[in-house]
Amino acid sequence: MALIVQKFGGSSVADAASIKRVAKRVVETKKAGHDVVVVVSAMGDTTDELIDLAQQVSPLPPTREMDILLTAGERISMSLLAMAIHNLGVEAKSFTGQQAGVITDEVYGKAHIIDVTPSRIKDTIARGEVAIVAGFQGVNPSTNDVTTLGRGGSDTTAVALAAALKADVCEIYTDVDGVFTADPRIVPSARKVDRIGYDEMLEMAASGAKVLMPRCVEYARRYDVPVHVRSSFSTHTGTLVTNQEDPSMEQPIIAGVAHDRSEAKITVVGVPDVPGKAARIFEVVAGAGVNIDMIVQNVSAAATGLTDISFTLPASDGAKATSALTADQPTIGFQSLQYDDTIGKLSLIGAGMKSHPGVSAKLFAALSEAGINIEMISTSEIRISVVTRADSLDDAVRAVHTAFDLDAEETEAVVYGGTGR
Amino acid sequence: MALIVQKFGGSSVADAASIKRVAKRVVETKKAGHDVVVVVSAMGDTTDELIDLAQQVSPLPPTREMDILLTAGERISMSLLAMAIHNLGVEAKSFTGQQAGVITDEVYGKAHIIDVTPSRIKDTIARGEVAIVAGFQGVNPSTNDVTTLGRGGSDTTAVALAAALKADVCEIYTDVDGVFTADPRIVPSARKVDRIGYDEMLEMAASGAKVLMPRCVEYARRYDVPVHVRSSFSTHTGTLVTNQEDPSMEQPIIAGVAHDRSEAKITVVGVPDVPGKAARIFEVVAGAGVNIDMIVQNVSAAATGLTDISFTLPASDGAKATSALTADQPTIGFQSLQYDDTIGKLSLIGAGMKSHPGVSAKLFAALSEAGINIEMISTSEIRISVVTRADSLDDAVRAVHTAFDLDAEETEAVVYGGTGR
Repeated sequence: MALIVQKFGGSSVADAASIKRVAKRVVETKKAGHDVVVVVSAMGDTTDELIDLAQQVSPLPPTREMDILLTAGERISMSLLAMAIHNLGVEAKSFTGQQAGVITDEVYGKAHIIDVTPSRIKDTIARGEVAIVAGFQGVNPSTNDVTTLGRGGSDTTAVALAAALKADVCEIYTDVDGVFTADPRIVPSARKVDRIGYDEMLEMAASGAKVLMPRCVEYARRYDVPVHVRSSFSTHTGTLVTNQEDPSMEQPIIAGVAHDRSEAKITVVGVPDVPGKAARIFEVVAGAGVNIDMIVQNVSAAATGLTDISFTLPASDGAKATSALTADQPTIGFQSLQYDDTIGKLSLIGAGMKSHPGVSAKLFAALSEAGINIEMISTSEIRISVVTRADSLDDAVRAVHTAFDLDAEETEAVVYGGTGR
Repeated sequence: MALIVQKFGGSSVADAASIKRVAKRVVETKKAGHDVVVVVSAMGDTTDELIDLAQQVSPLPPTREMDILLTAGERISMSLLAMAIHNLGVEAKSFTGQQAGVITDEVYGKAHIIDVTPSRIKDTIARGEVAIVAGFQGVNPSTNDVTTLGRGGSDTTAVALAAALKADVCEIYTDVDGVFTADPRIVPSARKVDRIGYDEMLEMAASGAKVLMPRCVEYARRYDVPVHVRSSFSTHTGTLVTNQEDPSMEQPIIAGVAHDRSEAKITVVGVPDVPGKAARIFEVVAGAGVNIDMIVQNVSAAATGLTDISFTLPASDGAKATSALTADQPTIGFQSLQYDDTIGKLSLIGAGMKSHPGVSAKLFAALSEAGINIEMISTSEIRISVVTRADSLDDAVRAVHTAFDLDAEETEAVVYGGTGR
């Protein structure tokens, strides 16, 4: 008998029929002898519909009120799920973030969890009932107002509750079978990864793998919560995200290939090559609330004393960054700005690359053989990322996946496709 | 400068455009120098849609979860209204029933308010901001779970808050101009009543006038809260419901004619005319959770020792009452049951009838002249009610309205119709 936290996203509870399906799954887990705590998101498109309503009454709604509005979504899904479970003969009670003891800071719209005190959840489990908790929300204790956790909030709620309850595992239900060595829509021969370490998963998530948000993986790593990413449409084992130091875990050199199409590149042309100018550029961008990713500074042309500085950033922050830089042009003294949102980023991730020299050489050779030009490079201890043209990104991902022997063998691919395993 | 509680129902906040209209009205009141607390219901059909969702997942949902579900509705309307007011340049904050200090008992689905401790609302007013409070909801303090107040709940929230805040007036916005001497759809010459006492309003509401729920009027009477019933589509003065002892208030003999089509009549035929049988009948009906209204017992036929007992009850409780009585037939020993849901009830209400004899004689004469048969009669100190056939109810209301000189004069009716006053 284990204590299991199960998290279901909006698409898993999109309508009454889906909610009944989730209820059946929860009841099966409960009847197998486990204690179950369920975390749910708002139904399907509810959040988008509420945002649309807010836009209709106010172009810039106060964030406190926005959070009150959005948290109506989980009230609806959580109470309906409790009813559906009750209807199957198992007692279930739903709780808001506040009632579940999810304490946050007071940054409405993107609050951070600062503590979890789930005494009501523990009482509910002790009575043999299923506890259902609203994902994505918490309470600002200084005012007793509701807060929302921002993107990836429900996964984070689930992992935080699992940590506070010392749950045996946190199951994140999704529409894919787990974490893959690459996006199967681009690389049909991609394999499901059975186990992956927190660090590798974090790099995968930060590099564009959408199955988990970096924030949730960070939380799981900090509190050592085993996370089981699995499909809500099958009962097959998915991917276990766990401690890399686990001695039972065989470490492959490469965990997978991630890709990201959501970044853009800004090149600041003709920057005077004197100390402080680069620092000034990044101060201005940071001051606009924009996080930058990769940076390249060209070698200065001796004749002019000018250099170019390129960096990547989320394309959604492009306008903010360019207008902040333009406003500061007199101080920085650059000649012009170039903006390019037709780039792609490929990342090769693997904890084993620390102890295996030659990984980057092999990566560059594979891309070169495939005729793909590399525009920027950055590395961490367990990751190498390169920027390419957006329209050659898919070819790049396939070439690298093959070069590092990540493709499934023919038979395995067939078995996979045949049984949905 | 006054403290005004304004209550807007679901149809006043049915969509974004309506919410913006309500916001404008609130801001106008605020800018006229008053402190404003707003109570809102859920948007338009939200509650019905949520009930429908619940029915889809469970035929008998637990009441605690039902209340969690339904209270999502006011979260949405209250936060949107706060945004819309903010957008007009006035600060506004929305609060749940719990945050506003609306403490109830723990009867989910039809909780009663047991205390109101609106410290956050007072703080908000003191800061010069508009406080918006979710109607229809409170908190069960023993578990900190949300409760709903049942039918007429939002009006009751508004009056209870007005009482706790010692507000100068509680304005209930509706789709009519106020309380009328009769339903204008039946009596086109009905006049708007400028002032009415709590007792008369209570009898009107209990007798079928739908503009206010009896529960809300009772609360207002207990705490002496002046209630202003007015239209959300105009700025005209509506009807002030206030203390009858107010010396400035001229008391007409008759306040108005109410009617009710929602009742049914059960006749228990052939009841042994021995002590305890009538009591047993009403015990059985009360035990089924049904409230009865009027009762008539026929004179016993000496030859048989049997009598008939008729009573009226809400038609929606008809099935419950008849099956409870049928189950108890062996004990009561009656011969048969007759069920009739084609009845109508007319009530004449007026505090002045206490000191003016002859009111009932005039009423019966008017009905007789109009050829309307009276089936049952009941009276209180300030009300006379009669049961008629349902299809003669409209004629009865018109005849009585005219007989008691309640019809507006021609010119007044034209002015009213012409300007929407």
